[in-house]
Amino acid sequence: MIYLDNAATTKPNENAIKQAEKYLFENFYNPSAMYKEGHEVQSELKTARLNLLSCVANESDFEVVFTSCGTESDNQAIFSFARRGNAVTTEGEHSAVYASFLELKNKGIAQPRFAPLLSDGRVDVEKLVQLVDEKTSFVSVIHVNNETGAINDVNEIAKLVKKKNPRVIFHSDGVQAFGKIPFRLCKEIDLYSVSAHKIGGLKGVGALIKRKSLTLPPYIFGGGQENGRRSGTENVFGIMQFVSATKEKFLTLKEDFNRLAEYKKFLIDGLDKSVYTVLSGENSTPYITSISAVGLRGEILLHILNDKGLIVGTGSACSSNSKNRFSRVILACGIDEKTADGVIRISFSSQTTKEETEKALTLLNECGRELKARMS
Amino acid sequence: MIYLDNAATTKPNENAIKQAEKYLFENFYNPSAMYKEGHEVQSELKTARLNLLSCVANESDFEVVFTSCGTESDNQAIFSFARRGNAVTTEGEHSAVYASFLELKNKGIAQPRFAPLLSDGRVDVEKLVQLVDEKTSFVSVIHVNNETGAINDVNEIAKLVKKKNPRVIFHSDGVQAFGKIPFRLCKEIDLYSVSAHKIGGLKGVGALIKRKSLTLPPYIFGGGQENGRRSGTENVFGIMQFVSATKEKFLTLKEDFNRLAEYKKFLIDGLDKSVYTVLSGENSTPYITSISAVGLRGEILLHILNDKGLIVGTGSACSSNSKNRFSRVILACGIDEKTADGVIRISFSSQTTKEETEKALTLLNECGRELKARMS
Repeated sequence: MIYLDNAATTKPNENAIKQAEKYLFENFYNPSAMYKEGHEVQSELKTARLNLLSCVANESDFEVVFTSCGTESDNQAIFSFARRGNAVTTEGEHSAVYASFLELKNKGIAQPRFAPLLSDGRVDVEKLVQLVDEKTSFVSVIHVNNETGAINDVNEIAKLVKKKNPRVIFHSDGVQAFGKIPFRLCKEIDLYSVSAHKIGGLKGVGALIKRKSLTLPPYIFGGGQENGRRSGTENVFGIMQFVSATKEKFLTLKEDFNRLAEYKKFLIDGLDKSVYTVLSGENSTPYITSISAVGLRGEILLHILNDKGLIVGTGSACSSNSKNRFSRVILACGIDEKTADGVIRISFSSQTTKEETEKALTLLNECGRELKARMS
Repeated sequence: MIYLDNAATTKPNENAIKQAEKYLFENFYNPSAMYKEGHEVQSELKTARLNLLSCVANESDFEVVFTSCGTESDNQAIFSFARRGNAVTTEGEHSAVYASFLELKNKGIAQPRFAPLLSDGRVDVEKLVQLVDEKTSFVSVIHVNNETGAINDVNEIAKLVKKKNPRVIFHSDGVQAFGKIPFRLCKEIDLYSVSAHKIGGLKGVGALIKRKSLTLPPYIFGGGQENGRRSGTENVFGIMQFVSATKEKFLTLKEDFNRLAEYKKFLIDGLDKSVYTVLSGENSTPYITSISAVGLRGEILLHILNDKGLIVGTGSACSSNSKNRFSRVILACGIDEKTADGVIRISFSSQTTKEETEKALTLLNECGRELKARMS
């Protein structure tokens, strides 16, 4: 089985599990406990926090709050800072941000504003900045879109937004970017969400990276863990495994990026253009390739490929819980319903091999042609 | 090292980890994915949900929502149902409930009311019911207190509360009760919080058991996982390990309960009463024994015991993040500050042996006498 749905989740990094194993049976103590075994775990968490942070940001300007997932990180950022007035985001957000923005409206907290996308899936920056005014409390822009792979230059966007309104709190969902594309947080970004299970970490672990000088209220109240910013006993094993997996990813980030960019080019070049249209833009992440078998149903193709031993996605795994047939993000790129219906997402991990890519390409062409013939 | 701080966290159940291991590397797929491997995980999660539920409740009346911890479960229950008017809880709550009730006031959502405790740590039921009126939207009563071990008869209390105001939503934090004391949810309880890591599960997993007919809004918004009630990719490995650990606990729940009740009696009977006063009441859980070395500092005693190879707690691990010297719950039992200062909590797990209890007793008496002599 060739697994190319790594944007949905990745196989956990076994080496990182081994690294963290001692926190299962040996150092299983509650980090809030007052005896030395507890203090020790607490102090190792502190080191882990710094190790994670150093991969993407300056330790003197930023700090890490561990959460249970990227979705929780997004929720905490949004519900902590979107205030009376309006809050601005894009049509290309993951549902963790999108649904939370809709909830801002439902709860009467703030008026959500959605900036449109360009055809390649990036946000239209000019229109986004136009939506920001003196009543804007919060802006959230996804770093790498999980469906199209489009990369937004969030450092640049944050600067433009703050230039227009310096009081805005700027957040970015970095779940599909972190550990995958070269990037460091500039000081105009206030909050950045990351997730473990997209880069070989375990499900159930995430973090919200925050500007140090920003006071982050808790979203989950209780015992005051994470310096009062996220209560609930810390998921020590999960956190340690996440940080190990992260360190490993960053060691080879650039090589992986370049190698996968080659695989992606190979894949795109080799696709039978009488079946497939490529949706991912020129400068999208090498990790995600969105294509459409125009006129066919992506879901049916997915099942055929699945039977032949290739696992791919159709847009976001998360949106499979929704009743909508078409992806909201794909439609927001200005793509027609016929094309949207045929969408297939191929997503690599740093473990993906050239051989797998070749086999995947063969299967995509074979099965696509076969289905097309059957349908016509 | 003898570990008797199992109310803070337990050593994970190794057998349950083995049972769940296939969800790490084999069935690591995203349960929301549309291919058969995803569906398979989704369907196994459904079975896990029912397995967990059947341990404490009727499957036709209740259902399970997996969360990231007991604290999150408490937060979701409280912030979903505490509405205009007032919300009633007790002075004996874990900070996950207590801090959330204070937040109800801060946010102007509802007026919190706190029912006083009896000297043994149970809530004064009569006074609790008096606090409930026609403007009460929500009532939360801890099942087993994490510091004193006091057991509240939450089934009976829920009935009394609903008799006074049938529109109240009744919640109980069952974190220290679940898998430890014989109990099944009666239909007057609407919501019940449980946590994995107190019974051999991993940190980072919890559940909110809810009455089926109750519409539970999400607290974390996004992809609509858990039937729209808790977004974020499910922590499949953690959930499966939790459910395995739970099943194992319930298999021997009554034997464990009876055996630990004997150990607790042995411990209490053997304590040097010239040093220690027992705070836990007659009918408290066998898993938790709260005592005080009156006139000494519990924290210092904890460190001495730690050096001698015995790990115990001082009240709640979670409250170590707070700046208060004395435990809020212990003071609410009407215990004076001198006694509160000397509190030590000894908490068993089902793995605790008679031999460990004997050794712990010897160390408690030796170190307590020694410290007392040194101080006088």
